[in-house]
Amino acid sequence: MKNAKLVGKSDLNKKSVVRLNERLSIGDRDILIIGGPCTVESQAQMDTIAQQLTGSIQALRGGVYKPRTSPYAFQGMGTNGIEILARTSRASGLPVVTEVMAIQQIETLANQVDMLQVGSRNMQNFDLLKALGEVDKPVLLKRGLAATIEEFIMAAEYIVSHGNPNVVLCERGIRSFDNYTRNVLDLGAVSALKHLTHLPVIVDPSHAAGRRELIGDLSRAAIACGADGLIIECHPEPDQSVSDAQQALSLPAMAQLVESLRPIATAVGRHLPLSPVQNPALMAA
Amino acid sequence: MKNAKLVGKSDLNKKSVVRLNERLSIGDRDILIIGGPCTVESQAQMDTIAQQLTGSIQALRGGVYKPRTSPYAFQGMGTNGIEILARTSRASGLPVVTEVMAIQQIETLANQVDMLQVGSRNMQNFDLLKALGEVDKPVLLKRGLAATIEEFIMAAEYIVSHGNPNVVLCERGIRSFDNYTRNVLDLGAVSALKHLTHLPVIVDPSHAAGRRELIGDLSRAAIACGADGLIIECHPEPDQSVSDAQQALSLPAMAQLVESLRPIATAVGRHLPLSPVQNPALMAA
Amino acid sequence: MKNAKLVGKSDLNKKSVVRLNERLSIGDRDILIIGGPCTVESQAQMDTIAQQLTGSIQALRGGVYKPRTSPYAFQGMGTNGIEILARTSRASGLPVVTEVMAIQQIETLANQVDMLQVGSRNMQNFDLLKALGEVDKPVLLKRGLAATIEEFIMAAEYIVSHGNPNVVLCERGIRSFDNYTRNVLDLGAVSALKHLTHLPVIVDPSHAAGRRELIGDLSRAAIACGADGLIIECHPEPDQSVSDAQQALSLPAMAQLVESLRPIATAVGRHLPLSPVQNPALMAA
Amino acid sequence: MKNAKLVGKSDLNKKSVVRLNERLSIGDRDILIIGGPCTVESQAQMDTIAQQLTGSIQALRGGVYKPRTSPYAFQGMGTNGIEILARTSRASGLPVVTEVMAIQQIETLANQVDMLQVGSRNMQNFDLLKALGEVDKPVLLKRGLAATIEEFIMAAEYIVSHGNPNVVLCERGIRSFDNYTRNVLDLGAVSALKHLTHLPVIVDPSHAAGRRELIGDLSRAAIACGADGLIIECHPEPDQSVSDAQQALSLPAMAQLVESLRPIATAVGRHLPLSPVQNPALMAA
Repeated sequence: MKNAKLVGKSDLNKKSVVRLNERLSIGDRDILIIGGPCTVESQAQMDTIAQQLTGSIQALRGGVYKPRTSPYAFQGMGTNGIEILARTSRASGLPVVTEVMAIQQIETLANQVDMLQVGSRNMQNFDLLKALGEVDKPVLLKRGLAATIEEFIMAAEYIVSHGNPNVVLCERGIRSFDNYTRNVLDLGAVSALKHLTHLPVIVDPSHAAGRRELIGDLSRAAIACGADGLIIECHPEPDQSVSDAQQALSLPAMAQLVESLRPIATAVGRHLPLSPVQNPALMAA
Repeated sequence: MKNAKLVGKSDLNKKSVVRLNERLSIGDRDILIIGGPCTVESQAQMDTIAQQLTGSIQALRGGVYKPRTSPYAFQGMGTNGIEILARTSRASGLPVVTEVMAIQQIETLANQVDMLQVGSRNMQNFDLLKALGEVDKPVLLKRGLAATIEEFIMAAEYIVSHGNPNVVLCERGIRSFDNYTRNVLDLGAVSALKHLTHLPVIVDPSHAAGRRELIGDLSRAAIACGADGLIIECHPEPDQSVSDAQQALSLPAMAQLVESLRPIATAVGRHLPLSPVQNPALMAA
Repeated sequence: MKNAKLVGKSDLNKKSVVRLNERLSIGDRDILIIGGPCTVESQAQMDTIAQQLTGSIQALRGGVYKPRTSPYAFQGMGTNGIEILARTSRASGLPVVTEVMAIQQIETLANQVDMLQVGSRNMQNFDLLKALGEVDKPVLLKRGLAATIEEFIMAAEYIVSHGNPNVVLCERGIRSFDNYTRNVLDLGAVSALKHLTHLPVIVDPSHAAGRRELIGDLSRAAIACGADGLIIECHPEPDQSVSDAQQALSLPAMAQLVESLRPIATAVGRHLPLSPVQNPALMAA
Repeated sequence: MKNAKLVGKSDLNKKSVVRLNERLSIGDRDILIIGGPCTVESQAQMDTIAQQLTGSIQALRGGVYKPRTSPYAFQGMGTNGIEILARTSRASGLPVVTEVMAIQQIETLANQVDMLQVGSRNMQNFDLLKALGEVDKPVLLKRGLAATIEEFIMAAEYIVSHGNPNVVLCERGIRSFDNYTRNVLDLGAVSALKHLTHLPVIVDPSHAAGRRELIGDLSRAAIACGADGLIIECHPEPDQSVSDAQQALSLPAMAQLVESLRPIATAVGRHLPLSPVQNPALMAA
């Protein structure tokens, strides 16, 4: 990776910390858990998640611009969705991350959310990457469906070399010949990325598995593998989700999953900051 | 492909013809051959190709905005390159196709070139596809590196459903476990696309093979398989090419390759329109 | 491929010819067409194919030992099937090829059939390859489902280095992320093999496509690409086939397909030896 | 998986335990660690490993029949190697597992070793699987390089339906488009297998990673994911290994890795039976 001038590392101990807000960061000792629905559907949906998962998640995810295979599928709530995210964030204190699909969406999103996600299908949308290099917000860069580790790292280099050092990498599964799982979670890549770059690396087990019964195992594996955090899909009523219903966890399941991570984080010298006593969903479970 | 409302076909004989200019079209009996370098490098380079390959190619390709894995690699000549393309096109009468990487490039490109190419890395850049749906120029849509046939068809549906019916599909090889060839040319997909959609389908053997010694065989195979045309990389001095040097053909090799296609086109009921007597490169070979 | 001491080639023009019997060989100017069912089901089935396809095929295929994913699926007729093959061969004069799955089957098969096939799942069953190196019968070696070109060539080297120079390679499609076609036919590998080894190379479009409507296009493409022959599944009543029913051609369809190859073979300097006037299936079509 | 009549499970809590010897088993609460070289090279090599890793591993691995891509690569020590394995086993009390490549090797191996391994290249060598169904020794079945989860399960069904219920599955990485790691470890498959079959599942991180610096992370991930054990390559002098040198761990590194698994096993309700105080390699480290 000799071309990874800015995101590569020669010193194995070098590690970047990306700040989400004044209190929260990714890449230090604390594990960051991001939770939320595939798609922002309503204010009530987002507020319920924020309230129920206090004590389990430190940041909210939710898509308002949705990359869908079909032009006839729901394309997201757009600006109305951004406002929902912003209101839930203000009320709960949780920072929010959402996907940006086009350069012209950047300005509005950057003003209202805490982290901009580049989806797998846009990992090599180089003009979008360059534009995000000029933004003063952290970027969550998801690995492309068939991107090599080198291509993934160099996509991050595009953003950083254009001025924005705050990039977090996200492994979310790659395409394979098998279709029992939606994708194949490549934890070898997570380990390799930790050796090759100083950027934080998180894992999305939801899109990798595509089946909710596998997400707990993969989440625990990711933390044991050294991931700096997780981004997991959950929903107040998973089967009613407008997209990716079969991979969304219920809120109590999400809270229980996060608790199961605590001793594993400790085993690898990391820390899960939130306390379960604060967690109404877990209490209800 | 029940969602391919506009690009799918129920009648197996339905076939769309996409016009490049008043004289040229893709999808009818004539096979269309597009040739040119990976990257536009100079006026002399493009003029030489146009002059030497009269009688072999009916359209010119050449990139001015280049999607490169590394931000430090040459990113293309940009607007200067567009002017070169336009001048060569006016002088030679050959229409030109070039890649568009971002929405803000569309207007300028649409005014100066004859066909806008969406590269593999942007096949699911849905905002770009939607914007190209509003343009009155044909679009050459390349298959993503790991796009399923359904995703490829639905990407075309994005463009057509936003108002532009003139889409040509291009199979250019998919990612596999082997690295002897750069990608795996998927001619089964070409055959499948002919059964599933009425859009014209062309083949890019250059990016599939990644090795110039394989391009002749794959070109002949593509025409025998029913492709409506080919887009092939060639260069006056292949080894001096600023990108993809190992897959570019010399101009005499290109002319000879095109001649070898003639009887195969005839064998499958198609026609190669240009006459070799017009071809100086072939004469020189 | 520096280790391909025996099957590699330094002289690009070197080409081996493998003899099937006194009259027939693979690897010279003539294209060899092998046809028959996935599974040998009855004497009548095999005799019908041999009679109906006189003039279209020069050799018969048919499995008597079947590699099936499930132990509860039909595993083939075994020795009864071998006798059926042998009788049809004697009556029709057509040589037969069938799969060998285990070392202990070699002796019986070698006495009764003309060519022993190693299936994809056994391409790296090295003990079987070594044992076939000691047999005086040609071997048809199918590429593994995810075998690299180097691994494929080195599997042939196993057979040849153990004493049997009569190996024919068969590209039959590789695994990919898409499931519209059963596998992805890798014609780039066919072209590469012609550059890397002097062994004959044939193509199996049936297992690649997995859908009968694509087999004609892929067969024509394979011949245009330089394949030395084809092995195609066909059946007197395709929908009644005990295995792979959706990819078997009817006998008239098979005869018509073979006819469509004739001008393409000529276009690439090859020859299809049989004459259509001899072909009852084609006459009936 | 409706055809997995014997190895499938309807009751999620059903779990098989496979006994290696009177004291050791796989599939219960205890995690089983198997260690040893890719290839058995000498008595001293195996004895050193057994002595140094007392307290870290409960079983020894070592190949005496080696599946090699090239016929000119070292093919293993054969029967001499079996005797070495048997002597080390008797001296140390550690059971041994080694690969069986052909039916004719089964009898000798079954008399001298404790577990017979089927390698990835033979996962669908159905005649070998059937023959192993008639043996009274446990079988370690490795997943094929491009085997689907269903194919993997049905390969186990072959063995069990032929009479041998003692099968352990081993995920060892699958082929992908990236070549930074040797294969892609598919922990989603490990989780899926636990839902679909009652057979024990272990993980081989060495062949997945192909790079020793990644093996620790992947081992910890596998245990966190619910694997019943690990099989890891290690060598007294890794760089001198006759095969797979770049993925072998040194003995002190192996001992330290095993120690790092202890709290993770505990975190997922499992137990690592051996005590580090017994471990000379760890003491020396």
